[in-house]
Amino acid sequence: MTVKLSINTPPYRILYAMIRVSNLQMSKDFYSHALGMKILREETYTEGRFTLVFMGYGVEENDAVLELTHNWDEQSYQHGNRYGHLALGVSDLEESCRQMKAIGVSVIREPGPMLYSPDHTDHFENIAFITDPDGYRIELVEQPDLKNPTS
Amino acid sequence: MTVKLSINTPPYRILYAMIRVSNLQMSKDFYSHALGMKILREETYTEGRFTLVFMGYGVEENDAVLELTHNWDEQSYQHGNRYGHLALGVSDLEESCRQMKAIGVSVIREPGPMLYSPDHTDHFENIAFITDPDGYRIELVEQPDLKNPTS
Repeated sequence: MTVKLSINTPPYRILYAMIRVSNLQMSKDFYSHALGMKILREETYTEGRFTLVFMGYGVEENDAVLELTHNWDEQSYQHGNRYGHLALGVSDLEESCRQMKAIGVSVIREPGPMLYSPDHTDHFENIAFITDPDGYRIELVEQPDLKNPTS
Repeated sequence: MTVKLSINTPPYRILYAMIRVSNLQMSKDFYSHALGMKILREETYTEGRFTLVFMGYGVEENDAVLELTHNWDEQSYQHGNRYGHLALGVSDLEESCRQMKAIGVSVIREPGPMLYSPDHTDHFENIAFITDPDGYRIELVEQPDLKNPTS
């Protein structure tokens, strides 16, 4: 496919990233208790046999959020290695990781500077990786001056 | 893992969703020309042999964006079926799909109402699905009153 021309129908906006989860309650607990997200919307589709839960830090009208899809009759998924992860900014990386470990969250990459810096800089971003109940990796990026999103 | 307690280190913010792309130029063209995103940041890591490109509609300080990761020495990835897709709000779904088709974008689910509505409602969201150059599915959700993100 070759894209030569630009479309001309703004505005567009990123609404959410959707991930499929195996145990909805465990995922809701994880994203709310371990990561501090709020449940913004929950929709049950009895006829379609699935449930959607939208979680995030702000409000859906202004901020991109996470969509959890729970298919009632499907438990077996494969991760693949194409999709990477969701990245969250955190104001205090060391402290977040310490508290997460204390409540049983798996920190698979300890907080610390990235191995590499971008060319022509000496800025090594401070990051960590954790996993959610389904094994999705989540990157935590330290941003000391982080402000809360719209709410 | 059982999460019983909540952490206490706000604020947190969703920064980006990261996907691995095989041909960086094709992906940059697609997300800019077909989806109208801006290139917000591009970082080359010669020592690590990868390039990161951050694209989106607003500014990274306020809005969640998309991170494209291009590993110079890796072309072979599998999608799996756990991660779903990125969802974009569009103000005019029919027109967006018409224009996308005209420039060669693959619309794998024609614009139209969802098959199901949430329980106790008769609201059938108007959606379509397209694919990016790597085969990632992207959901387009019609939001006639959509406003541009912060910029």
